[in-house]
Amino acid sequence: MTGALPHPFDGITPGEIQLATKILEAAFPGVNLRYKKIDIQEPTKKEVVPFIEAERLGKPLPPRPARLLQVLFHRLDSGAFYKALLNAGTRSILYAKELPKEIQGPVDADELVEIEAMCLQHPAVKAEVAKLQLPAGVTVCNDPWIYGTDDPKENRRLFQCYMYIVATDHPQNNHYSLPCKFSPVFDGITRELVRMDYLPGGPDVQTTETQPWKPVETIQYAHDLLQEPLRTDLKPYVVQQPQGASFTVEDNLVSWQKWKFRVGFNSREGLVIHNLTYDQRNVFYRLSVSEMTVPYGDPRAPYHRKQAFDVGDVGFGITANQLSLGCDCLGHIKYFDGYRADAKGNPVHLKNVICLHEQDNGLQHKHTNYRSGAATVVRNRQLVVQMICTVANYEYIFAFIFDQAANIELEVRATGILSTVPFDNHTFGTTVPWGTNVGPGVMAPYHQHMFSFRMDPALDGFQNTVYYEDSVPMPEDENNPYNVGYTTEQTVLKTSGTANTSVDRHRVFKIRNDSHINPITYKPIAYKLQTSPAQMLLASPRSYGVKRAGFATKPIWVTKYQDGELYAAGEFTNQSKESQGVEKWVARKDSVENEDVVLWHTFGLTHNPRIEDFPVMPMERVSVMLRPDGFFTKNPALDVPPSNQAFNQSTLHPESAPACCAPVSDRTVKL
Amino acid sequence: MTGALPHPFDGITPGEIQLATKILEAAFPGVNLRYKKIDIQEPTKKEVVPFIEAERLGKPLPPRPARLLQVLFHRLDSGAFYKALLNAGTRSILYAKELPKEIQGPVDADELVEIEAMCLQHPAVKAEVAKLQLPAGVTVCNDPWIYGTDDPKENRRLFQCYMYIVATDHPQNNHYSLPCKFSPVFDGITRELVRMDYLPGGPDVQTTETQPWKPVETIQYAHDLLQEPLRTDLKPYVVQQPQGASFTVEDNLVSWQKWKFRVGFNSREGLVIHNLTYDQRNVFYRLSVSEMTVPYGDPRAPYHRKQAFDVGDVGFGITANQLSLGCDCLGHIKYFDGYRADAKGNPVHLKNVICLHEQDNGLQHKHTNYRSGAATVVRNRQLVVQMICTVANYEYIFAFIFDQAANIELEVRATGILSTVPFDNHTFGTTVPWGTNVGPGVMAPYHQHMFSFRMDPALDGFQNTVYYEDSVPMPEDENNPYNVGYTTEQTVLKTSGTANTSVDRHRVFKIRNDSHINPITYKPIAYKLQTSPAQMLLASPRSYGVKRAGFATKPIWVTKYQDGELYAAGEFTNQSKESQGVEKWVARKDSVENEDVVLWHTFGLTHNPRIEDFPVMPMERVSVMLRPDGFFTKNPALDVPPSNQAFNQSTLHPESAPACCAPVSDRTVKL
Repeated sequence: MTGALPHPFDGITPGEIQLATKILEAAFPGVNLRYKKIDIQEPTKKEVVPFIEAERLGKPLPPRPARLLQVLFHRLDSGAFYKALLNAGTRSILYAKELPKEIQGPVDADELVEIEAMCLQHPAVKAEVAKLQLPAGVTVCNDPWIYGTDDPKENRRLFQCYMYIVATDHPQNNHYSLPCKFSPVFDGITRELVRMDYLPGGPDVQTTETQPWKPVETIQYAHDLLQEPLRTDLKPYVVQQPQGASFTVEDNLVSWQKWKFRVGFNSREGLVIHNLTYDQRNVFYRLSVSEMTVPYGDPRAPYHRKQAFDVGDVGFGITANQLSLGCDCLGHIKYFDGYRADAKGNPVHLKNVICLHEQDNGLQHKHTNYRSGAATVVRNRQLVVQMICTVANYEYIFAFIFDQAANIELEVRATGILSTVPFDNHTFGTTVPWGTNVGPGVMAPYHQHMFSFRMDPALDGFQNTVYYEDSVPMPEDENNPYNVGYTTEQTVLKTSGTANTSVDRHRVFKIRNDSHINPITYKPIAYKLQTSPAQMLLASPRSYGVKRAGFATKPIWVTKYQDGELYAAGEFTNQSKESQGVEKWVARKDSVENEDVVLWHTFGLTHNPRIEDFPVMPMERVSVMLRPDGFFTKNPALDVPPSNQAFNQSTLHPESAPACCAPVSDRTVKL
Repeated sequence: MTGALPHPFDGITPGEIQLATKILEAAFPGVNLRYKKIDIQEPTKKEVVPFIEAERLGKPLPPRPARLLQVLFHRLDSGAFYKALLNAGTRSILYAKELPKEIQGPVDADELVEIEAMCLQHPAVKAEVAKLQLPAGVTVCNDPWIYGTDDPKENRRLFQCYMYIVATDHPQNNHYSLPCKFSPVFDGITRELVRMDYLPGGPDVQTTETQPWKPVETIQYAHDLLQEPLRTDLKPYVVQQPQGASFTVEDNLVSWQKWKFRVGFNSREGLVIHNLTYDQRNVFYRLSVSEMTVPYGDPRAPYHRKQAFDVGDVGFGITANQLSLGCDCLGHIKYFDGYRADAKGNPVHLKNVICLHEQDNGLQHKHTNYRSGAATVVRNRQLVVQMICTVANYEYIFAFIFDQAANIELEVRATGILSTVPFDNHTFGTTVPWGTNVGPGVMAPYHQHMFSFRMDPALDGFQNTVYYEDSVPMPEDENNPYNVGYTTEQTVLKTSGTANTSVDRHRVFKIRNDSHINPITYKPIAYKLQTSPAQMLLASPRSYGVKRAGFATKPIWVTKYQDGELYAAGEFTNQSKESQGVEKWVARKDSVENEDVVLWHTFGLTHNPRIEDFPVMPMERVSVMLRPDGFFTKNPALDVPPSNQAFNQSTLHPESAPACCAPVSDRTVKL
């Protein structure tokens, strides 16, 4: 913060966390509170737009909007769950309301650790472990899981612990290779054992009593634990930026190649891009991954409860990795930190949770005049803002990537370890039709990863319109005598609602500003969204899986902006019975033409595991692009300097004939 | 060749070109021949498989298959078009046959240059140019175009020249910004003017006599010619490989990270990947971009004739750029050369037409054990084999990308300059529904780029099976009591035929070897094809555009291997009336289950130009992946060494707090 006042888009400070705790302790004297979340509530758009517009235009700044602190907590006397909003400036409580019993707050960062430890100490668990008759050097661990809804009357806060056998000789032994067949369910408030579930061993739901463990080989991922030697023929690849980075950073404001934006961080979404401008023109007000859900396709109880909402149930801010120099990015790296509160309300420093660096992505544009051989070549330098989240077994790598042609990419890489289940696959041919055998006694069920990308556009202003454009054949008539003509059809989303993607119609979604007409195309300035068309939820509409994740039933949602509507599946997803998100907001049938509009894109992966995804998964990449489409009057990357050897300093493989890098003097090809 | 005999997959040598010319001159004494193509005809699979299998297994090599030379030529006395096949070893002609009159050979590398020059010298063209009354410093140039079919009786060899105004003061003046409204058509054999076409100025087909040119601003792309200054805030980004590359190259054999393959080059397809193995296991026999077509959607004559087949009509080998160190790739680069014949039958050295280098593509896999904070991180090093083709106005960048997790990617980047047409858009609001105004007096019509990726698999042997797998909900019955279950359905392509992609069913195509069962999954070893689902041809099935490009009407084709069936739209595409390609071969209804099968994937771009695509286009990227799916028993990249600072040598942005790269010693997050 460099001592100054925080910017309206800055994340919470340690002092603000301490202040929130102090205010609430004074308001609830003598009551022990357990904090689930203390974070900034973003200022209303109405309040903040005059401020950021003054910044953009270099005008005197109006007063800053108040810093609002949002707190979720449990009263430990009554168990009641509260939401409070505080004004940090006036040190006052705007409200502190008890929420209905059916609402479960997210898992807080300390809670899983406590449940995990408590589970291992529970006599019933110990009794099951004893039956395994584990040899020396081997113990049991567990991953507490969010408890997917299957009972409309269930209001307890529940956790299902999945148990694994793990060797104790190395911190990276892969317990996911050795799942157990018992799984205790706990009440997260009372800490009581609710039930001991037993997991099926075969393709049906039949279970057996816990048997002595028959040791099998662990499929290891850690380098120290591999049986095979590491490859020795990979030579170093060093990215050098001798003059440093092309970006500048002032507090959380990043400036790079005509782009400016603020890096935001909160405990729920983690990385957020605020107030994105290009060459001082407004482009997007806010970009974030607003939610994701991971439902499993294994039909057998208790696996139907495996449906995580990794944003709403836990939070990407909470699970963001501490990134390390030289490990997670190459080149010249800037890191950003964040803060969260622990269960006692103390600030916790989240170091290096976001990294910023440049990368080279091959060629951006090239043309050779075949007559002269003269070539214009420009490389594609990109700016990457990255966060990596570990959600128990799994890792997500999120990157917002900006380039010099004014493109914005959201790249998601899925990696980490498959969530596995025990399976008696020792007999040749034993398989299930909803999963893949990945090792002896272990199977990885089919599942989906469904992401919601929330885009709050501000293309040359805050009133925008969303439409889609299909490419369609022209009628076979006198205007199309050779039957080759094709054209486009535009459909404006006039009221809040949904739309489908369409590969067959080459459907492209666009955001435009009807008040700003491109002087050459004669059409409104626009950006287009290159969607990532994906299969939507496979579960039945009658399932809780779908009721809780309406956002994952349609790829496109358009809502009218309202403060606080940030999360596609609603504010509280943990054990939710029904989503309170985009499907409710579109139902308002708001007018969204030339309005303050929000575009949500659901995309994802149907992930039927390959055995190659185990014991750690080579990343699967999904990408969504936002590209200017009539926003400029020509290629905005024309002024990027040429790619040449003096700048790039490549080296020639000795087996190559010598090459020159001067402008090609003779024809590339004699066409 | 290091003096040894050429490998069966090596491209043609200069000596072989000279030999072919000598043999044919002896066979046609006193007849002047014009060579259109002299190239290797690949040995039959039956002949070459024993040779490459002996190589793979380290056994004594059987005799090499004969080097066969394929020659296309015109007799200049009769104009007859011939195809000949020669045996280089025996210096003999296997056949030399005259082809039917309706067959036009491809454009040869000298022909376009001759037509282009002849056009400018033609009195009728000069007369039109005179009417333009061009000022000093400005002249006219032309791009001769392949003449798309519109008349079943037309057997002449035709070229349509599109004319442009261009300033003479710089070799990179952008003539595509200034199209003229007249367009001569020439007979390529007689060199006679067939017709002067006039191009419409407005949205209908009305044409006018050539008028004096009213100067307008040229939209320039070359750095020298830009009005705005270049960006000055882009800092160098240098890739250093102080120990050199991780690959080794011996002649055309590349070895890198368990991969081995031969880089092939021919004048038609350019880059070909032969005999791809991983860890000494057969994976693919041959991979190539077999064809592409670019039909335009502008319905107005003569634009309906704009349908290029960039492989069959011209050839990616012929149009491949001479690549330059430091311009087209970063890091440590190996270049490969090629040879073609000129019209007289002399060898032409095509220098640096293929480049080979490594790149870093972010993280490949990562997992953090949240209990210990211990992380395993592996970066995604890739090997890129790249070719860049300039087809008059346009550029294609083709790259085969291999990684350490045994993935194979075909990446296509479309860049270069839009093919433009004149359009009187000076009055506000004047637009057409099949194109985009990109500057004063210039419009870029909608078009499609349709590629055919030919995959000849050899997964642990040469008998493979293609099938597709859909993800589908389970029935809502007693086996799926919570309605969340889903499974997969497999459909084997038992006879040669086609298939559609399906986003809604998450359709994945797979190639398997039924004789090799994975010992853990109990399923046949396989690779999957992650398609790039795309809109197929928009033109009417009644159009020549579609009749000539059957391959671009379906995304998936499966044929039984036959020698010589390499090109999706058939051997001769130039002015073809009907394709003789995949649609004919699948019609044989061959059995393709557990056979020598070939998989063809048609993908592409419906390219409705953005104004940002002018005057040179920021690349549009399309990617198709082949990934192992049960080919291994675990992640094949496990043995890649960890990513760490000692190896990667990143640097810290000075505004960052200091960071460490030792293994993270405390928990990343306190979950």
